[in-house]
Amino acid sequence: MAMGETDRLIEVIRGRNAKTVGLQFPVGLRTKAVELAQEIEAKAGVTCLVSADPSFGACDVADMPADLIVHLGHAPMPHLRYRNVFFYDLPGPPLASMAFLDAAETLLPRRVGLLTTTQYRGWLPAIRDYLVTKGHEIRIGEPDRRLAYAGQLLGCDYYTATEIEKDVDGYLYVGTGDFHPLGVAILVPGKPVIIADPERGTARDLVEVRDRVLRQRHAAIARAHDAETFGIIVSKKIGQERMDLARDLKALAEGHGRRANIFMMDLVSPPLLEGYRVDAWVNTACPRIAIEDISQYKQPVLTPQEFEIVLGDRDWNDYVFDEIRA
Amino acid sequence: MAMGETDRLIEVIRGRNAKTVGLQFPVGLRTKAVELAQEIEAKAGVTCLVSADPSFGACDVADMPADLIVHLGHAPMPHLRYRNVFFYDLPGPPLASMAFLDAAETLLPRRVGLLTTTQYRGWLPAIRDYLVTKGHEIRIGEPDRRLAYAGQLLGCDYYTATEIEKDVDGYLYVGTGDFHPLGVAILVPGKPVIIADPERGTARDLVEVRDRVLRQRHAAIARAHDAETFGIIVSKKIGQERMDLARDLKALAEGHGRRANIFMMDLVSPPLLEGYRVDAWVNTACPRIAIEDISQYKQPVLTPQEFEIVLGDRDWNDYVFDEIRA
Repeated sequence: MAMGETDRLIEVIRGRNAKTVGLQFPVGLRTKAVELAQEIEAKAGVTCLVSADPSFGACDVADMPADLIVHLGHAPMPHLRYRNVFFYDLPGPPLASMAFLDAAETLLPRRVGLLTTTQYRGWLPAIRDYLVTKGHEIRIGEPDRRLAYAGQLLGCDYYTATEIEKDVDGYLYVGTGDFHPLGVAILVPGKPVIIADPERGTARDLVEVRDRVLRQRHAAIARAHDAETFGIIVSKKIGQERMDLARDLKALAEGHGRRANIFMMDLVSPPLLEGYRVDAWVNTACPRIAIEDISQYKQPVLTPQEFEIVLGDRDWNDYVFDEIRA
Repeated sequence: MAMGETDRLIEVIRGRNAKTVGLQFPVGLRTKAVELAQEIEAKAGVTCLVSADPSFGACDVADMPADLIVHLGHAPMPHLRYRNVFFYDLPGPPLASMAFLDAAETLLPRRVGLLTTTQYRGWLPAIRDYLVTKGHEIRIGEPDRRLAYAGQLLGCDYYTATEIEKDVDGYLYVGTGDFHPLGVAILVPGKPVIIADPERGTARDLVEVRDRVLRQRHAAIARAHDAETFGIIVSKKIGQERMDLARDLKALAEGHGRRANIFMMDLVSPPLLEGYRVDAWVNTACPRIAIEDISQYKQPVLTPQEFEIVLGDRDWNDYVFDEIRA
């Protein structure tokens, strides 16, 4: 980390009179962990505890015996009551070239909704201005209570997209992965979702990924059709826990003559679900689990809405992507 | 689970007026989880939450939003203050044959210390009597505050062995794996440790395993000799957390001009430690981690005592196996 970048953080730590500081890094910043801990200890006179549990978002804040938890790389979820957590936004990369935008621009309709993740949120005004000069009308959706910024997209919250649905002909997502904009492509049918990837410098339409994922979801629902026993997964993470929903789904299953038990866990991963005698899983934790890691699980893993389809309480034509709403 | 076996458990749940019951199973009992949860829900009128985080022992009790946690398959650690936890001992297998004991008996010295794990503890009186008829003098060590039963061995507590060290010429461990008795073979040099394996019906001397592990430990210490930056692992689990020790080790390292940072985590596993820029790990969590999974970690993983050897504060001739003592 360059000298000076952490000065604001050191000031906060001093201001809190913290003696022990917990540090929580997303996986991509693990390489910075020791360096930052050493710098903070030297400059702020504290002891750092690095959280080595994986961190996937502001939904998942470390519980450590520290006076202050510094959570790096994610924006807070405003509706959650965090205790002694300071969200430290590392400065995002500079917007060095518009090449990836030029690549995207040819794929865009006239009226465009702009979407991105925390990392690139500082780019949105410049991108809006640039696309306006190209003749586009740009909308950036206001956040709901789980989102920190206008235009911010989470893999479990597409409010900034659906909020402006009626005012746009399509979306531009600035970012690197498929998962965040995938939900938009499924929730808002008929409107193109274009990814402008600043790391690769390329752009692409998400339609093929969307269609492939929908085929996979259809197959998972079909595989679970005759399941007798369901395991309903509930996360222990502060921003992922949906116990009330899980209890409702269990009651729903039992009302349909199926068996269902609730499974609670912190990190959801394929080996941890092996051995249990269930025919299918229903995931109420991070929606990404059911979608992205599907091939690694032995049994089908359904979203709550897909479970309703299996039980006959929802039609496939009313398929919606799972979201966690405040 | 056979009918009737769970009656005592149902009674306890009813007696506590629990509405929500958390169930925690060791990995080997996952196949029973759904069946038991269904039976408890039907008979006790409660909702069960199955903990799907892996459970390795009474050091590691699930934190769940339940009125009562039922922890299966492990004996409690008496010194820990558990909240609302009922330890439910599944009945162990019957002692169907003495063949594995006959195989062991030929390897045993005259005065023998008997050791086992929770699962087989009911067999100890019969085994003692049998070996006495063969001419042996048998001792069964009293437990310390982390152990529930006489003769009980944990992978992190060998008190029932060392307590009777002066009164025996060797040990008989009744059980299936190498790890539990391995610590005894290292902590009590010069006295044979014989495993009588009731599942395989065979017996063996642990001396070769002990020597191989000691060579591995020597190699790990050598690999860490010139390490500049150490990561000191602290567990979040109630019976594994040794933060004070970790802070002492960090100070010790810094006194020797090495860098050290504390890493806190729940489940310790190789992929979770990848990416951090440390040259070696020091593990204060479950001692088994450094010993059994050594080949899966990129960097050497040392026990606290091995770390002292690396720093020059302990001689290899004073090598001791790591234990967690109350």
